[in-house]
Amino acid sequence: MTVAGSTRYPSFIDDLARSESGRLLRAELGRRWPETPDRLDAIVRYALLPAGKMLRPMMTLHAAEAVGGSPRDVLAAALGTEYLHVATLVHDDIIDADTLRRGRPAVPVAYGIPGAIVAGDHLIFHAFQAIVEGGRAVPPASVVAAVTALAEAGQDLCRGQAMEERLVGDLDAGARWYPEMIRLKTGSLFRAVCHIGALLGGAEPRVSAALARYGEHVGTAFQIRDDLLSYLSTPEQTGKPATSDLNNGRPTLPLLLAYDAISDAARVELLAVLHRRGAGPGDVEWVTALLRDAGAVDGARRRMVEHAERARAELAVLTPSASADVLTGIAAWMTSEMA
Amino acid sequence: MTVAGSTRYPSFIDDLARSESGRLLRAELGRRWPETPDRLDAIVRYALLPAGKMLRPMMTLHAAEAVGGSPRDVLAAALGTEYLHVATLVHDDIIDADTLRRGRPAVPVAYGIPGAIVAGDHLIFHAFQAIVEGGRAVPPASVVAAVTALAEAGQDLCRGQAMEERLVGDLDAGARWYPEMIRLKTGSLFRAVCHIGALLGGAEPRVSAALARYGEHVGTAFQIRDDLLSYLSTPEQTGKPATSDLNNGRPTLPLLLAYDAISDAARVELLAVLHRRGAGPGDVEWVTALLRDAGAVDGARRRMVEHAERARAELAVLTPSASADVLTGIAAWMTSEMA
Repeated sequence: MTVAGSTRYPSFIDDLARSESGRLLRAELGRRWPETPDRLDAIVRYALLPAGKMLRPMMTLHAAEAVGGSPRDVLAAALGTEYLHVATLVHDDIIDADTLRRGRPAVPVAYGIPGAIVAGDHLIFHAFQAIVEGGRAVPPASVVAAVTALAEAGQDLCRGQAMEERLVGDLDAGARWYPEMIRLKTGSLFRAVCHIGALLGGAEPRVSAALARYGEHVGTAFQIRDDLLSYLSTPEQTGKPATSDLNNGRPTLPLLLAYDAISDAARVELLAVLHRRGAGPGDVEWVTALLRDAGAVDGARRRMVEHAERARAELAVLTPSASADVLTGIAAWMTSEMA
Repeated sequence: MTVAGSTRYPSFIDDLARSESGRLLRAELGRRWPETPDRLDAIVRYALLPAGKMLRPMMTLHAAEAVGGSPRDVLAAALGTEYLHVATLVHDDIIDADTLRRGRPAVPVAYGIPGAIVAGDHLIFHAFQAIVEGGRAVPPASVVAAVTALAEAGQDLCRGQAMEERLVGDLDAGARWYPEMIRLKTGSLFRAVCHIGALLGGAEPRVSAALARYGEHVGTAFQIRDDLLSYLSTPEQTGKPATSDLNNGRPTLPLLLAYDAISDAARVELLAVLHRRGAGPGDVEWVTALLRDAGAVDGARRRMVEHAERARAELAVLTPSASADVLTGIAAWMTSEMA
């Protein structure tokens, strides 16, 4: 339901992970998931730790702080967004039969499919409880709104997952459904993450709605960024498709933009390439030329920049603060560190 | 995580399903899950419909009504408890590789494991949203308490599932952990179901706590009842073990009580029988005699009655009403219609 594990996080996000907020999140995560003899706890711990960059909980914390809330008050809720994110990764690894995650055996490989199903469910339930815990400083109505935001994001993730499965290898439908698919599978959780932070930070409705929109645009840019990384992975960054995209038939934005721009004859050929999963002689070179001639990588980059800019524009509701700067920085990072 | 599909529901529960509340629940469920071309919706609909007896949502409705709430106000939340229950069944059918459910192919068989994982997750998220929807008539603090109750029950279900998996074939640990295991895997959701109904029906804390305890005792009795049904399935009701209990090594209360009561030598023999899953010549007859001599079926029945009586005692907090009578009736039905 989420971006591939191959995503590169250049320095801005590394610095953020090493910041005071990052330390706070990691310390609290460790405190909440100590070593125990319980096997279910062990599976959850394996899924959660060592923590990644925790971009989503970081955004919850800074959204709360940017509207005047205390990061410590919303810490539990911030971790709740990570629980939901990791739950989807654990269940996705069963669905996609992925064997590696962050360079280690994926949870279903390490603990079996039954263990992975139950651990994912467990994390989802923990996520909701964490939202409630993170709402002690605000009126209960705000907590209810935050629970609703998480429940809606979860439903969207499921719909996005189901939609992506349906669209694999179907570029006609892919081009039509791409914006909705990435809104569901990536935009919705980023939206919820920021919305929850704002709600539990005590924002007024106009501000929390703006932060929700900010999150959705950031998430959308993040997904397009992930799509683009496949095409920028060579030193020369020529827009050569990573073979994995051709191998799994995933409808990435550059492929879809190229598909939209070309003749019917070229579409038939592109579908044939995807059908044989890029395994034919000259397939990769042919697609590379196609993407270049169609301007598909640049087109995707333009869309990513557009979403990042719309995200930044939403932050105009905030009064200046260090956390507002971090949120601005996240939107800027999305695009500026792409070559 | 839940009682087996083989549970018999004699007339009291059949009558309840045909009551006005039952019609209300079925109508609302149908209204909320219409036919659509969406595949994910289709899987969820297949899992939910046709509805079973809906004992859990029925208890939510009557708990709400018994404390002065309106069944219509809590209807969404009542269905939410069914969503959670069905989600666990769908995921359990993957975990246990069960191929049949309610006489039809189980969801993973009908739609594949990926579809079953996503549909189960989707139902969990819907459950939380439904709790929020069912709380519009009460202060937000009560909704937050109801969300917490559902999140805790979900975590308990996962722990119960993990525990049962660990205890299969291990009667030593089984005897020690049985009460905790059935509290987690069955008691906790019944507890939440009644607690949520009371909270969203507007009960004061003393009353909602009593209804939560009522639910946990009913759920515990319900699970022991399910254990017992395996031993009362012959016309003569002689306490002959259903071969399925020996086949899957599930630690049922009669087996555990027998194990507790017998000599070390007999324990070794019983473990050997379970290890070969009751497939040896004379295994079933030997276990039958063991259970009879240990008074294990009667012992389990006594515990079931004890929980049902403790459940009824908790209802003393209620003022008399038709819904209070239904709750009393459910506790009574647990035991009275067992031969």
